[in-house]
Amino acid sequence: MSSHIQVVGIKDIQLPIKVREKSGGLQNTVGTMALQVNMPGQHRESCLSVFTAVLNKYLEEITIANFSKILKDVKQSLNARSAELVMTFPYFIEKKAPITETRGLMEYSCTFTGTSAEKDSFIISVSVPVTTLCPCSKEISAEGAHNQRAEVRLNVKFSNFIWVEDLIALIEKSASCELYSLLKRPDEKYVTEQAYNNPMFVEDVVRKVAVTAFEHPDITWFSAGVESFESIHKHSAYAYVDSNEMR
Amino acid sequence: MSSHIQVVGIKDIQLPIKVREKSGGLQNTVGTMALQVNMPGQHRESCLSVFTAVLNKYLEEITIANFSKILKDVKQSLNARSAELVMTFPYFIEKKAPITETRGLMEYSCTFTGTSAEKDSFIISVSVPVTTLCPCSKEISAEGAHNQRAEVRLNVKFSNFIWVEDLIALIEKSASCELYSLLKRPDEKYVTEQAYNNPMFVEDVVRKVAVTAFEHPDITWFSAGVESFESIHKHSAYAYVDSNEMR
Amino acid sequence: MSSHIQVVGIKDIQLPIKVREKSGGLQNTVGTMALQVNMPGQHRESCLSVFTAVLNKYLEEITIANFSKILKDVKQSLNARSAELVMTFPYFIEKKAPITETRGLMEYSCTFTGTSAEKDSFIISVSVPVTTLCPCSKEISAEGAHNQRAEVRLNVKFSNFIWVEDLIALIEKSASCELYSLLKRPDEKYVTEQAYNNPMFVEDVVRKVAVTAFEHPDITWFSAGVESFESIHKHSAYAYVDSNEMR
Amino acid sequence: MSSHIQVVGIKDIQLPIKVREKSGGLQNTVGTMALQVNMPGQHRESCLSVFTAVLNKYLEEITIANFSKILKDVKQSLNARSAELVMTFPYFIEKKAPITETRGLMEYSCTFTGTSAEKDSFIISVSVPVTTLCPCSKEISAEGAHNQRAEVRLNVKFSNFIWVEDLIALIEKSASCELYSLLKRPDEKYVTEQAYNNPMFVEDVVRKVAVTAFEHPDITWFSAGVESFESIHKHSAYAYVDSNEMR
Repeated sequence: MSSHIQVVGIKDIQLPIKVREKSGGLQNTVGTMALQVNMPGQHRESCLSVFTAVLNKYLEEITIANFSKILKDVKQSLNARSAELVMTFPYFIEKKAPITETRGLMEYSCTFTGTSAEKDSFIISVSVPVTTLCPCSKEISAEGAHNQRAEVRLNVKFSNFIWVEDLIALIEKSASCELYSLLKRPDEKYVTEQAYNNPMFVEDVVRKVAVTAFEHPDITWFSAGVESFESIHKHSAYAYVDSNEMR
Repeated sequence: MSSHIQVVGIKDIQLPIKVREKSGGLQNTVGTMALQVNMPGQHRESCLSVFTAVLNKYLEEITIANFSKILKDVKQSLNARSAELVMTFPYFIEKKAPITETRGLMEYSCTFTGTSAEKDSFIISVSVPVTTLCPCSKEISAEGAHNQRAEVRLNVKFSNFIWVEDLIALIEKSASCELYSLLKRPDEKYVTEQAYNNPMFVEDVVRKVAVTAFEHPDITWFSAGVESFESIHKHSAYAYVDSNEMR
Repeated sequence: MSSHIQVVGIKDIQLPIKVREKSGGLQNTVGTMALQVNMPGQHRESCLSVFTAVLNKYLEEITIANFSKILKDVKQSLNARSAELVMTFPYFIEKKAPITETRGLMEYSCTFTGTSAEKDSFIISVSVPVTTLCPCSKEISAEGAHNQRAEVRLNVKFSNFIWVEDLIALIEKSASCELYSLLKRPDEKYVTEQAYNNPMFVEDVVRKVAVTAFEHPDITWFSAGVESFESIHKHSAYAYVDSNEMR
Repeated sequence: MSSHIQVVGIKDIQLPIKVREKSGGLQNTVGTMALQVNMPGQHRESCLSVFTAVLNKYLEEITIANFSKILKDVKQSLNARSAELVMTFPYFIEKKAPITETRGLMEYSCTFTGTSAEKDSFIISVSVPVTTLCPCSKEISAEGAHNQRAEVRLNVKFSNFIWVEDLIALIEKSASCELYSLLKRPDEKYVTEQAYNNPMFVEDVVRKVAVTAFEHPDITWFSAGVESFESIHKHSAYAYVDSNEMR
């Protein structure tokens, strides 16, 4: 068994990074990385320091733009078949409350996964917290309806670059209501009524995200998942779709 | 600096345990333990294996009843001033849904903390998930009210032993509504309306738990905290009371 | 887009379970489950209570043997194409220390994943903590060699059932040294020297696990990963192999 | 029971922050915050939005310097007795490898806790990963000695401000060896031999940190803990000292 391919890498390394914003600015945040290569299995030399050295070399410029440089560098240094860099980071977007327009900063967890193999690929992933309100509960109850926080995760491959801001907006329009960090009374009234008028199961949210992503001209593949932290149970409900399963 | 006292121990060790149920049975579950002693600081000998040996010795009988034996054993073996055993475990209680009475098993995270020093002490802690429904949201909105899952943590010292079942029941009566693992439609209608008719901020829940615990004849000290995973925000709200701050 | 398939389920639900031991006994432990189905996307009715009801129905018998009954039950109730049950649990094995043969209980995290689709499949996964000692560090240093705890994860599909005990043993023979919960001085000397005489990079450990699994007559597919919590760095090293990449 | 005091707040809110570096620069990082007040228990109005509003107001300037402004602001807005802000963040320091002096960035988790009550107080906490090598293992073995990563946590109150860099350095000198993100072969030889020549139990590390902190002219109170992720066991060893227990 002399020609098996194996993956070798380092993970859980945190470094300061900069991410280009749709508005044109450069956002400072902190990335948690994993960097790995695929190599023939008999390769014996430990290559850990190569990974750390490459990441430290590109410190000032750990941006999407430099993913391919980082991957090429590490592939060549280790004579590897392919390399992959995964970078997870909090991303901040200023939102205005729906009625008072009070500004508040919302945080979204994002991940960029760049792979350099025979073909290069890049996956953008965003995690967006939303509100889901239960249609069943609303239908059968005299008043009220149970609702809860849910989390939507969308992973996309694209033909033309898509801004994280736009993927987040796509998701936020697909739930019972979106979240805001700062709400005054008129805003709280608005989101309460908005959710009440827009009841959705996790299956409905994932379907809406899936349909919108499926019709997006620049998205070539996606997978979407929704996990709802049910307010009437201790467990979560979830739903998931992969675009490979759609027509 | 020759007479400082330090704590030494092991933690994150998992072992099968048995817990006596209020109904008389013995429940099998899995405990995650930490076992430590307070010793004069110049003590040089590593004592790790003593801790593991004592835990393994009492394996068949790791119950509350044997806490004092375990602590005494480890104190003597290490000639220590005091010893403490902390055991966290999932505890299962069968609940009947409020209308259909369908049976379902609910899981609660509990912790027993036994200390053997000049005086012995024992703290029982329970974590109970509940529903909270926002009074403000209900008051200002035409329809509906945002609600979410929240978690109540109660830690008590007692003069007479109190069953975990009773502490859980105390908490479950102190929120907008309690949780159930299994709900049919009539039950879902009930819990939705119950929560809607019983709006409570985290401050209200912690106050209710605190008042009930304060008036309990067997509780000599307690602390209570409530964390609510707000359905309209990404962050949590929380409230906390310590009985030392009450009159 | 009327015929997309989506996954719907519940997750993070804990229930007491029993697992058959190789020795013939039945071990009580606690399982954390996720239960899901694949269904056509236009299905509107919320099915959460079906999942919880099925799990509660088989409570006394949540064993591997009953996986197919649980899956069939939930598939029929929801008229689904396929169903999957994932159950993660701590599993306890008594080990004897290598020299003194002192008995101590070790805990291993295991996962059973059963899928009922056109074809049924079952994956057994075990997580085994081991010691890795660095060959490079040993070679270049006058004395000593850095070593650390590492974790090996092995997932297998099989033609004939394989005991968890045997998968764990396979892994424990594939590292610098295996772990024990209880070691006296002669045992500590043994494991220190054993690791020193058996230096292995994460790539070496994963290769050894892979070769052994590849040659196992009953294993039809596997994937193996090793993560080492480097004692000289803050980050981890890891290596991974999938049998599909081997010849 | 009309005059009990309770704590109310928000937690798990992430915002971009800036931290002043000892070298004079301003480091961009991401803080996870909790903000709370102590208020009389009958206070009914929900105050969540006040917390978020205050944090968003000081966004550009969430630095230690502004802690007291933030706390004063929230105390006044809610007519509270006291307020507390806890901010946890990754902090980056460039280190030079011990022999080759290759530069690499290390990440340390830090927490600032500011309280505004009758008296103001400020606690600086740092978490520093280190290497510990076992004295017992070294003494009894023909060759080698088991070692592992450990984590030291130091919390201090001070009369004169102390830089996070200095607290980290204090800890890094108190273990078998400090960690580096980037090591070439000569550096790896150095750290391996350094650890081997400097065996320390967790009790030894915590004692050394404690003695150094106790003698520090600007530290008025401290607590220190060390947790070692034992390479020969699945569980951790730990030791802890509080300066109140020292003379």
